[in-house]
Amino acid sequence: MNIPPATTRLRGIFTPNIVPLTAAGEINEAELRRYTDWLIERGVHGLYPNGSTGEFTRFTPEERRRIVAIMADQAAGRVPILAGAAEANTRETIRACEYYHDLGVRAVAIVSPFYYKLSPDGVYAYFKEIAVNSPIDVTLYNIPMFASPIDVPTVQRLAHECPRVVAIKDSSGDMPHMLRMIQAVRGERPNFSFLTGWDAALVPMLLMGCDGGTNATSGVVPEVTRRLYDLTIAGHLDEARAVQFRLLNLFDAMLYSADFPEGFRAALTLRGFATGAGRQPLSENQQVDISVLSRTLQCLLADEGFVDEPVGGCPAGEATASDVDTTQVRRIVDTVVAELTRRGLV
Amino acid sequence: MNIPPATTRLRGIFTPNIVPLTAAGEINEAELRRYTDWLIERGVHGLYPNGSTGEFTRFTPEERRRIVAIMADQAAGRVPILAGAAEANTRETIRACEYYHDLGVRAVAIVSPFYYKLSPDGVYAYFKEIAVNSPIDVTLYNIPMFASPIDVPTVQRLAHECPRVVAIKDSSGDMPHMLRMIQAVRGERPNFSFLTGWDAALVPMLLMGCDGGTNATSGVVPEVTRRLYDLTIAGHLDEARAVQFRLLNLFDAMLYSADFPEGFRAALTLRGFATGAGRQPLSENQQVDISVLSRTLQCLLADEGFVDEPVGGCPAGEATASDVDTTQVRRIVDTVVAELTRRGLV
Amino acid sequence: MNIPPATTRLRGIFTPNIVPLTAAGEINEAELRRYTDWLIERGVHGLYPNGSTGEFTRFTPEERRRIVAIMADQAAGRVPILAGAAEANTRETIRACEYYHDLGVRAVAIVSPFYYKLSPDGVYAYFKEIAVNSPIDVTLYNIPMFASPIDVPTVQRLAHECPRVVAIKDSSGDMPHMLRMIQAVRGERPNFSFLTGWDAALVPMLLMGCDGGTNATSGVVPEVTRRLYDLTIAGHLDEARAVQFRLLNLFDAMLYSADFPEGFRAALTLRGFATGAGRQPLSENQQVDISVLSRTLQCLLADEGFVDEPVGGCPAGEATASDVDTTQVRRIVDTVVAELTRRGLV
Amino acid sequence: MNIPPATTRLRGIFTPNIVPLTAAGEINEAELRRYTDWLIERGVHGLYPNGSTGEFTRFTPEERRRIVAIMADQAAGRVPILAGAAEANTRETIRACEYYHDLGVRAVAIVSPFYYKLSPDGVYAYFKEIAVNSPIDVTLYNIPMFASPIDVPTVQRLAHECPRVVAIKDSSGDMPHMLRMIQAVRGERPNFSFLTGWDAALVPMLLMGCDGGTNATSGVVPEVTRRLYDLTIAGHLDEARAVQFRLLNLFDAMLYSADFPEGFRAALTLRGFATGAGRQPLSENQQVDISVLSRTLQCLLADEGFVDEPVGGCPAGEATASDVDTTQVRRIVDTVVAELTRRGLV
Repeated sequence: MNIPPATTRLRGIFTPNIVPLTAAGEINEAELRRYTDWLIERGVHGLYPNGSTGEFTRFTPEERRRIVAIMADQAAGRVPILAGAAEANTRETIRACEYYHDLGVRAVAIVSPFYYKLSPDGVYAYFKEIAVNSPIDVTLYNIPMFASPIDVPTVQRLAHECPRVVAIKDSSGDMPHMLRMIQAVRGERPNFSFLTGWDAALVPMLLMGCDGGTNATSGVVPEVTRRLYDLTIAGHLDEARAVQFRLLNLFDAMLYSADFPEGFRAALTLRGFATGAGRQPLSENQQVDISVLSRTLQCLLADEGFVDEPVGGCPAGEATASDVDTTQVRRIVDTVVAELTRRGLV
Repeated sequence: MNIPPATTRLRGIFTPNIVPLTAAGEINEAELRRYTDWLIERGVHGLYPNGSTGEFTRFTPEERRRIVAIMADQAAGRVPILAGAAEANTRETIRACEYYHDLGVRAVAIVSPFYYKLSPDGVYAYFKEIAVNSPIDVTLYNIPMFASPIDVPTVQRLAHECPRVVAIKDSSGDMPHMLRMIQAVRGERPNFSFLTGWDAALVPMLLMGCDGGTNATSGVVPEVTRRLYDLTIAGHLDEARAVQFRLLNLFDAMLYSADFPEGFRAALTLRGFATGAGRQPLSENQQVDISVLSRTLQCLLADEGFVDEPVGGCPAGEATASDVDTTQVRRIVDTVVAELTRRGLV
Repeated sequence: MNIPPATTRLRGIFTPNIVPLTAAGEINEAELRRYTDWLIERGVHGLYPNGSTGEFTRFTPEERRRIVAIMADQAAGRVPILAGAAEANTRETIRACEYYHDLGVRAVAIVSPFYYKLSPDGVYAYFKEIAVNSPIDVTLYNIPMFASPIDVPTVQRLAHECPRVVAIKDSSGDMPHMLRMIQAVRGERPNFSFLTGWDAALVPMLLMGCDGGTNATSGVVPEVTRRLYDLTIAGHLDEARAVQFRLLNLFDAMLYSADFPEGFRAALTLRGFATGAGRQPLSENQQVDISVLSRTLQCLLADEGFVDEPVGGCPAGEATASDVDTTQVRRIVDTVVAELTRRGLV
Repeated sequence: MNIPPATTRLRGIFTPNIVPLTAAGEINEAELRRYTDWLIERGVHGLYPNGSTGEFTRFTPEERRRIVAIMADQAAGRVPILAGAAEANTRETIRACEYYHDLGVRAVAIVSPFYYKLSPDGVYAYFKEIAVNSPIDVTLYNIPMFASPIDVPTVQRLAHECPRVVAIKDSSGDMPHMLRMIQAVRGERPNFSFLTGWDAALVPMLLMGCDGGTNATSGVVPEVTRRLYDLTIAGHLDEARAVQFRLLNLFDAMLYSADFPEGFRAALTLRGFATGAGRQPLSENQQVDISVLSRTLQCLLADEGFVDEPVGGCPAGEATASDVDTTQVRRIVDTVVAELTRRGLV
């Protein structure tokens, strides 16, 4: 028996989680359970396994199911679960929807087709077939930097035709695009939910009508994203804005200093979890870069009071990416280049 | 004698204006003066001649000077003027700065170098040379869809080194980028002003710390952008948001239905100004498209109470770009394609 | 026991094949075997299952193995096989390499990591781990429109460090990029092979040093791509060029008139194969578009002498995408738009 | 009196020249005359002032005219001149066409509208108006990285409607695009000329039907581009290919190591011309980068026998961008980063 489409909006911060792995590269179930508890205790409104942060493409179909099963079991209904359910094709995806439905998750999230870049008509046909056959609510997942974009008319058309489609998660960070979607859909579907996946614009998105977010930073600093959400909803704009600016620092450091989601994995390690190494191998250079990043992240997390400063301390004042004395770095690099030139190496 | 750098921020909506032309393609001075008065009377905080809306690249250096001279004379100090001053190279640009300084404008705006895509170092060197030599305040103008992007470290560096650089106008519409700039600069330069050129995100930009905007819609519906600004500053968020959604409709219709800024020119004609044809020639198809667009715009402007509905009336409800019955259009187009196929034409 | 790295270059046209499906959406083994024979009989130099044309992402891991097993069994050593072997992560990919090795394929092709956009260092680390552990030769697969780009230094580094990496298949169609790769690698690795996946530039790529291609058109008109290859290698430049221009028409029609690879599937149907519907669902509009496309393709194939003209005949002269009387189409569309406007629909 | 449209194709290498400047930043007429002679004596087929290499946007309208006047006077009919004639709008551009016509140049080249990104219809309308009013032949100039792209249907339409449009110069380096243009136009307009502006693909472009090029490297090593052209036309494919690979090294070094066209200016200085500094100011970092680049360029030019090796000598073997020991550089950079980290700077 299918659950009827929801009559209330999805709201709040749904946390896309890193999957801890053992030294052998297998899912670390014990750590995943401990992480699930930790997130719930720190106030996240929901869980979002098999998201991009969860590296869903790097697991097998069986592993994806197992991740959700473990987390659903551990959460035990304390918070709703939004389960990433995209598989190789619509038939496999629908089967996954059925499986997650049986686990009792609140809804599934389906990323737009990726690898191939589909036309809007192709994106529509894909979601339509899934929505018609899914036993549970479906959240569209738009992440144009990785997958075929879901444009506004397609969202509107799916919202109009498919009661089972109840939300969109948009990770573009594009404010006008979000406003256009809200305007195109909210009149007809007042309970349709708009979630932003772009932590760097969380406060303004909430102010303009978003219902929440699926934000990777909430997997690292759930206390901060919860506070940001509560302050914004309560209308404490000045404080919310201040938290947004601090979150932006952390988000940028985790996002832009390493291949995604390695920065988030490094930060989660600092919060005390045995994440293990990811499944995407890292070159030696990348490992060095992550060591450097970890120190920066530790300073940022120390600033928030979550960890101690690293040995040797942090730069004075608020730690930001721009704290680097770029002039000094430049001067050193110039010296190096000059030396290389002298030796005839460049 | 140079004016010292300003000690107060640029604030409010500075209107980038279309330049009315005569049938012979010359600047229509009388209409430009009438338009200047009309804008000031409707509450714009400032004027912004020689912006992208003002098609600065399509005028000669002498014409660009004349446009500012006419408007400065007509404004007669009632509102400040931000004059677009980019010329072929830094030497010519500095001369233009001197000329506009003598006219008494409040500041100049310099678009980042275009045609060639410069590196951040090149963008820095360009603005630095101008800032050091300009007798009046300089606003950086970032419009990455048309010109070399000005990245956050470059803004920070120029703000740090150049007291003469007092503001940035950013037309990317990218909220996280705006937040990063504010965070990088405001601490050191509390009077540095952040203006957004992207009308589709005006309310959230103002909510997050922007000081105002240079918004092409304000040249067409100055009453609306002024109301939006006042509501936002006063903290009437619900009303401000509603105005933002309406403005978005109008902005999108003007921006995406014709080569920029033809949609804005068409709308200004509907408001009663003899804009004349632009200097970029239009194909027959484009002229047809603009006729269709004009009808849509008239309905949108009628909705706001500025003009009568077109003969034949407007669709019921709020007129939006999505009011089109796309299914019906599709069906008709399919019929056409089938007919073309039958005739062996495609 | 591993096969030692090859001492001769991969050469010629390796055909990436569409996978025929039954009405139930399962692999149509009988038709796939018939198609395999047909390709070999028409002169393709090799087979390339699980390529992008083969929609590898839309099959399960088990199905991908089965497709190669069927084709390897049917080919029975008549031509070499290059098997697409990318799976969810390096461990799964290495297992697939082992499986394909046991089937006796000539080499595997591994697409660069997709969905996530990796840095060059990440791309390097990924291929390095696979190359070190694969029992058979590895072809790098660069397709920057769909997957993380493999840049020239990374190709050079992998070619330098990994004897097991014996070739690159590049589907960018970017001639200077191909020249840079050849220049960076050929000196050190004279048997390293360069294959182009971009049919629109096949002749010039071969002329400048490529060893062959993996070309989707060869799955539809293997006679033509073989002729093109032979003419080019034999130095008959005028004739080769003429064939290239004709192939370009067909390629563009198949590639740009429908979401990939639907145009190729439609054309293969015209060549007499029961391809079945693809796994990506199509909207009604898409189905109409493909009907229109099929007629165009039938005319292009009739031009080559492979099929009869469609009922009603083809336009006079060589059928090309530009045969459409665009002025007439415009006029009709204008009429439609005017009528829609009159009815107040737009 | 107008010159009738040409009945023979433009052919060969037309050199886009750097404009030497004096210490005061003015056009260095004596050096420009000497440079003009030098180019003609080294075998360039034509001259192409006011191209992108010539930084046409950084000169005033009067200066652009003067540059052509000086070169036309100096060339004195020895080689044809293709004069860049784009001005602020179509009226100004047509006036420039008239001026260049009176100077006796062979044709003008008009870059597609830039800054604003025009639709294909807008691009068409722009060139149509110019073509109808120009007294001399017009070459379309497509450079999509800097200006509105000219798509294939637009080229075809203009070639069909405008006898005055006699050629296209395409700087995209996109081989399939070039083939599509040739196929769309050559049948109807056998004397329409196709020139490539992308030196990295000059040989294959010529092999596939291009008539020549407007190539910035020919302003630095005219002997090489002339040899490349002659070898290709004569059918000496192996030698032509070898020259293409060497030219690619030089082109990449000049193009990618500095903001365009600074690398070309640096190389021209090495050939013995007093180019002066460009009009776009350079940061200190950029000046250091160009010093490093100059050494590399000197080695590349020494390899060709045009200059002596720099003091201290060049790396053994053919100098290429990839001669850098990147591992060693990495190690040094890692050391620097580690040191910076230790000092708490990053």
